[in-house]
Amino acid sequence: MAEQFVTLQKSLKKLLDEKKYQTLKDVLGTMNGADIAAVFEDLDEERTPLLFRLLPKELAAETFAELSPEIQEQLITGFSDKELRELVSELYVDDAADLVEEMPANVVKRILAQADPQMRSEINQILRYPENSAGSIMTTEYVSLRPQMTIAEAIQRIRRTGVDKETIYTCYVTVERKLLGTVSVKDMLLAPNENIPVSEIMDEHVISVNTMTDQEEVAQMLSKYNFLALPVVDTDGRMVGIVTFDDAMDVLVEETTEDIEKMAGMLPSEKTYLRSTPWDLFKHRIPWLMLLMVSATFTGMIITGFESKLAAQVVLTAFIPMLMDTGGNSGSQASVTVIRALSLGELELRDLPKVVWKEIQTAVLCGVALAALCFAKIMLFDRLLLGNTDITALTAFVVCATMAVTVLVAKVVGCTLPMVAKKLGFDPAVMASPFITTIVDALSLLVYFGIASALLFK
Amino acid sequence: MAEQFVTLQKSLKKLLDEKKYQTLKDVLGTMNGADIAAVFEDLDEERTPLLFRLLPKELAAETFAELSPEIQEQLITGFSDKELRELVSELYVDDAADLVEEMPANVVKRILAQADPQMRSEINQILRYPENSAGSIMTTEYVSLRPQMTIAEAIQRIRRTGVDKETIYTCYVTVERKLLGTVSVKDMLLAPNENIPVSEIMDEHVISVNTMTDQEEVAQMLSKYNFLALPVVDTDGRMVGIVTFDDAMDVLVEETTEDIEKMAGMLPSEKTYLRSTPWDLFKHRIPWLMLLMVSATFTGMIITGFESKLAAQVVLTAFIPMLMDTGGNSGSQASVTVIRALSLGELELRDLPKVVWKEIQTAVLCGVALAALCFAKIMLFDRLLLGNTDITALTAFVVCATMAVTVLVAKVVGCTLPMVAKKLGFDPAVMASPFITTIVDALSLLVYFGIASALLFK
Repeated sequence: MAEQFVTLQKSLKKLLDEKKYQTLKDVLGTMNGADIAAVFEDLDEERTPLLFRLLPKELAAETFAELSPEIQEQLITGFSDKELRELVSELYVDDAADLVEEMPANVVKRILAQADPQMRSEINQILRYPENSAGSIMTTEYVSLRPQMTIAEAIQRIRRTGVDKETIYTCYVTVERKLLGTVSVKDMLLAPNENIPVSEIMDEHVISVNTMTDQEEVAQMLSKYNFLALPVVDTDGRMVGIVTFDDAMDVLVEETTEDIEKMAGMLPSEKTYLRSTPWDLFKHRIPWLMLLMVSATFTGMIITGFESKLAAQVVLTAFIPMLMDTGGNSGSQASVTVIRALSLGELELRDLPKVVWKEIQTAVLCGVALAALCFAKIMLFDRLLLGNTDITALTAFVVCATMAVTVLVAKVVGCTLPMVAKKLGFDPAVMASPFITTIVDALSLLVYFGIASALLFK
Repeated sequence: MAEQFVTLQKSLKKLLDEKKYQTLKDVLGTMNGADIAAVFEDLDEERTPLLFRLLPKELAAETFAELSPEIQEQLITGFSDKELRELVSELYVDDAADLVEEMPANVVKRILAQADPQMRSEINQILRYPENSAGSIMTTEYVSLRPQMTIAEAIQRIRRTGVDKETIYTCYVTVERKLLGTVSVKDMLLAPNENIPVSEIMDEHVISVNTMTDQEEVAQMLSKYNFLALPVVDTDGRMVGIVTFDDAMDVLVEETTEDIEKMAGMLPSEKTYLRSTPWDLFKHRIPWLMLLMVSATFTGMIITGFESKLAAQVVLTAFIPMLMDTGGNSGSQASVTVIRALSLGELELRDLPKVVWKEIQTAVLCGVALAALCFAKIMLFDRLLLGNTDITALTAFVVCATMAVTVLVAKVVGCTLPMVAKKLGFDPAVMASPFITTIVDALSLLVYFGIASALLFK
């Protein structure tokens, strides 16, 4: 797949070098916008406009919508006003709004100047909604029908206006923009009689979202109900647009990537990895690294506090990494599971007691199993095989007891913090491995030295 | 949203208690299969069949497909053969195949006995493909057209056969099951003339997948091209089914959850968190916890090797957690970023040198910044403020030099291991935080004691 793509890319570049424009036109005509966009991303700057001008109008708009902002800007800068007007008129309104959002002010001015008045006002409408809201990702191009229209008339209307709509397959029955019901092209085609009004076959139990609904919730609803599109209504209950399944898929992927980045202690980034410079990566990674490094001061202070005792029992030091790591891993398992379940909507805040109880039971099982294995490992491997006679059965017991308690603490902290974060209005994803690890490190050392003080140091 | 749902659930249960079946029927009729299924998941066992029988046939099938295997089995066990036959005939073939896959053998036997011969053979066909392949998630119910059919004839055919198809909006033009092209209902409706053959308006540049293509790749293709469905062809190039966007969305969510679970050191689970018992959670979590605990033995051995020197310079011990955590966090950031980019198809194996170079540059930036901050922190906070005079500028330098080197090592290991894993045919997601942390722990201690030996111990 990927190999074939590289070959294709090479031959397109060669055709461009040899100025075989007709052949290029023919080949590009067989391709999909997403694939052509991928070719553009790898092309040198001066050849991009040349190749772009070879695309037929509709395919050009499709390709353009898939390009990265950098290349979009390059292209627009090279366009004449007439070229820009043609492109903008072919773009779907939601893609045009995305474009306006990404471009610098002077480019935006040119784009809006070339858009026809209706499109300009629709773009402005979409831009008014806050980022990540349903309003900001919707498109205003949908098919609306009146309830008294017959199916035949509805199909006529689709024929007349459908070419510019992002989907024609779900139509929205409205009166004065109040949404009364939805009717699918499937229902219209399969209806026994073309002369009945659409109000008779429409589905009145419409599931809709508000302009301010979070885009992630919209995407999850589309996925849950298997809809092609969801209608978006404003606070007065008037229909203003639709969100289509393809945008919902993009949202799902983006939001999950963001969650994963946060879970690994990074600020989320909108650029793909290969297009991020080391400086970009640095800026997104250093804040959490610094914060976590500084918080490790507490762990250091705990060790310093026990320094004199540790000096007498240096053998205890060797087990610190194992205890901290096992604690950190146990805590991450719990926190990551809970974070994912929260973001998929499988868990609600009111489930907290259930979650904590489940984690306690799991922690007891894990703790006992780990402590038993650990005891065997220390006595057989560290003491017998490596001959480290500083290790007594009592030392091993102290380590294993710490292990069991640490796992319990880690699981409880790990499952609680994400839910508390959500309750307080923070993003639960931040409460993942790095954060939990830092807390659990300190706690596990306190448990360790506490148990050791009680049993080993007189 | 969720609150409203709980209220709805309560009133449905109340109506059931009061035996107000007609009202229940009316209310359920306004609801969506996914929502009704959610109500069922919370209902006690004896009332489930009662409520299910109130659903109209089509909605019953829709609801059934969304239920968990446990409740599906309960229901089927309570069904008469006639009821089962009615249900199976309403299910889409891919949902029926999923059902057969989940049920125990005796239930499967009953289901297949009640399916009509054609459906039985189609279910068996889907079940023949390996798990997670395109063949296993496809449906065999699609609209196929002949090339010489006119648009009017094609629409007639959709009217006649469309009711059972999962999507009618993309139709497939075939001759002897060889796929010649696709034609959308939109193109047919918008065509200027109903009497031209579909071969004239069909898109011949069909993107298809093979029955054996991995489901994740299929989902990503659907998302990339914004298609409603992708055709699936067998090794002889004959069309056997389609994968629709709604199944692709489910695959995207499932596969990502699996990746996230693996990245947190857990075996992937198919059950949701709330439906997993502590024993389930234990089984999925303990293997990695044990493995990582045992691998921490190396870290312990490194410390033991330096025990005598540590006893002389106990102050060094206090910085071990900070160095290990910062190394672990740096490594996870790199590995998680690379794992996500690999699974989104943004990175290929041939990008490895580019990736390593980018991570080295990022690591230098992060390392220098962290070392500088760390030096300031140690000298000002630990030494001056806390008055720990055991800490000299040289000690601080040793710690900070270790920090910088560790970050570099961690980033390189973190970005390399996932790509190597992929190259060797393993899942890159396993090479995330817990695994990387364990390796980086050992490496950071070696660096620490190496630098300390050179500068501090004569």
